[in-house]
Amino acid sequence: MSIRIGILGYGNLGKGVEIAVNAAPDMELAAVFTRRDPSSVQKQTAGVPVVSAAEAAAWKDRIDVLILGGGSATDLPEQTPQFAGIFNVVDSFDTHARIPEHFANVDRAAKEAGTIGIISCGWDPGMFSLARAYANAILPDGKDYTFWGKGVSQGHSDAIRRIKGVKNARQYTIPVEAALEAVRSGSDPELTTRQKHTRECFVVLEDGADAAAVEKEIKEMPNYFSDYDTTVHFISEEELLRNHSALPHGGFVFRTGSTGAAKEHRHIIEYKLTLDSNPEFTASVLTACARAAWRLQQEGQSGCRTMLDLPPAYLSERSAEDLRKHLL
Amino acid sequence: MSIRIGILGYGNLGKGVEIAVNAAPDMELAAVFTRRDPSSVQKQTAGVPVVSAAEAAAWKDRIDVLILGGGSATDLPEQTPQFAGIFNVVDSFDTHARIPEHFANVDRAAKEAGTIGIISCGWDPGMFSLARAYANAILPDGKDYTFWGKGVSQGHSDAIRRIKGVKNARQYTIPVEAALEAVRSGSDPELTTRQKHTRECFVVLEDGADAAAVEKEIKEMPNYFSDYDTTVHFISEEELLRNHSALPHGGFVFRTGSTGAAKEHRHIIEYKLTLDSNPEFTASVLTACARAAWRLQQEGQSGCRTMLDLPPAYLSERSAEDLRKHLL
Repeated sequence: MSIRIGILGYGNLGKGVEIAVNAAPDMELAAVFTRRDPSSVQKQTAGVPVVSAAEAAAWKDRIDVLILGGGSATDLPEQTPQFAGIFNVVDSFDTHARIPEHFANVDRAAKEAGTIGIISCGWDPGMFSLARAYANAILPDGKDYTFWGKGVSQGHSDAIRRIKGVKNARQYTIPVEAALEAVRSGSDPELTTRQKHTRECFVVLEDGADAAAVEKEIKEMPNYFSDYDTTVHFISEEELLRNHSALPHGGFVFRTGSTGAAKEHRHIIEYKLTLDSNPEFTASVLTACARAAWRLQQEGQSGCRTMLDLPPAYLSERSAEDLRKHLL
Repeated sequence: MSIRIGILGYGNLGKGVEIAVNAAPDMELAAVFTRRDPSSVQKQTAGVPVVSAAEAAAWKDRIDVLILGGGSATDLPEQTPQFAGIFNVVDSFDTHARIPEHFANVDRAAKEAGTIGIISCGWDPGMFSLARAYANAILPDGKDYTFWGKGVSQGHSDAIRRIKGVKNARQYTIPVEAALEAVRSGSDPELTTRQKHTRECFVVLEDGADAAAVEKEIKEMPNYFSDYDTTVHFISEEELLRNHSALPHGGFVFRTGSTGAAKEHRHIIEYKLTLDSNPEFTASVLTACARAAWRLQQEGQSGCRTMLDLPPAYLSERSAEDLRKHLL
C-alpha cells in the first residue's frame, strides 16, 4: 500500500516534492493544498485534486503525511503546529535560532493529536546537521567548518532588489578555494568571514539609475555584504533571465579532529553537496523524511522529531534486510 | 553516571577504543578482557584491570557495553553472539557478504538475553554505509561510487608477505584522481576496476630472493593485483619500518543523481574520509556506537542493530536539546 502524500503550498519547494513523490515507488500524491484559488494552480501531475487549504481537515483519512512547502519567516511557525493537529507533517523550517521554539510548538500539537511532526528537513538544516552530528560524536576533540555555495542566496538577492534603482538581481555565495584547501590540509585554520566566502552579484538597473551609487550601497550593506569581498556586475535583464534563472547551491561540512595517546593522529571528515536545484534537492529530503514520519506513527510514536532522531533506514523505501545485504 | 565500557581484545583496535573511551566525558573504562595471559598485557590506562576472557561473565553487572576488538575472519562470528548473551556488545564485523548471517546469530542471542548488539560499526561498513543509505533515499534515481585510499590494505600486505622470498611488505590502495574527477563532473562514468584504483607495494626481500620473480608474482596475483596497475618498490626493512609503519586510510562515497520533470537537474553527494590511523578512527566509531547500544537497552529494546538503525543523536554525548540548539 502506497504512502499517501499531501502537499501544502505549490511554489518551488512544493513542485519539487511533487517530482520526488512521483519518483518514489512506495508513494502516491493524494492532493495539493493551496491558499490561492485552487483553479489558478497548474499542476504537473494529472488527476491529482487541488484543494483549498481551508478544507484540509476533511482529508484527514485520505492523507498519510502532509509535506509543507511554505517559508520559515511566517508560514511554517503557524502552519506546522496547526496541521500537526490533523496529519503527520514534515517541514523545512530553517531559521536556526528559532528551532527550539518551533520544536516545542510542533511537539505539543503532535502529541495531542497522536501524530508525528518532523521539522527542519533539507540540507542545512538537514543533511549538513547530520554530517556535523556524526562527525562530532566520532571525533569529540576537533573543529567544525561549514561553507556554502557556489549557489544562489535568495535572501541576498532580495536585499539587492530592495535598493533604489535596482530592477532585478541575483547573488551567488562562493566559498574561497584557499580556505577549503587550508581546512583539507588539516592545519585547523582560524578563518574570518571574509576569508571563507566571496559574494558575486548580477544586477539589472532601472533606466537612469546611478551604477556607482548602487554598487557602493551593495558593498557597504551591513550583515549582508560589508564583511565580504563583493563583486558587482551590471547586466541586462535579458542576460539575467537567460544565464541566472537556475537555483543551484551546495556546500561543504568539515570536521577535523585528533586521536591518539598524544593526539598524534589527524582525521578529516568532509561532506560535500553540489546541487543543480536547491528546491528540488530539499524537496527530495522532505519526501524521504515523510516516509520516516509514516513509519514512526505506524509504530505508535507521536511528537516532534528532527533528522537527528530518525534511524537512517527509515528514510529508505528498501527493507532493513535489503539495506543490510546490499548497501551496508 | 558514566557508561562502563569493557574491551575484548587488546590489539590495534582495542587500544584505539581505550583512547576513545578515555576521551569521552560520559564513559569510563572498566576492564580489558584478553585471551592471552593477562599479566602479559601492557595497558595505557593505569588502574584498569586486565582480565582473562574466560572470566568475563563474572563482570556482567560491572560492564554496560562490551566493545569487541577482534577480527572478522574467525573471532567475531563466534565472539559477538557469545558475548551478546551476557553484555550489550558492539563489533566491527566487515565481511560484507556474511553480514546477514552474522546479524541473525547476534539477533537471536541478544533477544534471548535482553541485550543490544550493534554489528559492523566503523567506516566501511559504517560511515560509508550511512553515506550510501542517506544518498540513496534522497536520490533514488542515481549511481553510487565508492573509492578507497590512499591507505594501507592489511589484506593485500598479507598476500604479498605470503610470497616466497618476501620478508616484509606494505601495500597502499590509491584512488585514481582522473576517476574521482570524472565522477565529480557529473558525467556518470562507467569505471573498470583498473580505472578506479592503483596499487603500490613496498617490499623487503629475503637474502638472495629473485626480485624479478617476486614482482611478477605480485602483479599477476588473481583478485588481489592482476586487475590493477601495480607498482612494486624494493626497499630495506629499515626503510619499511621508518616510512611505512603507520596505518592511514580513507576514501570517498559518491552518489550522483537527477531530479526534475525531465531529469534535467544533476546533484552530487560526496562523503570523504582522510584518516591518519584507520584503527583509531574505527575505534572512535565503535565507541560512539557503544553509547547508542546503552541507550537502546535502557529504553527496553533488545536484539541486533547496525548503524543504519541508530538515531544519529544516540551516538552523541550531548542531549537532544543541545544538539537541536547548537548543531542542527
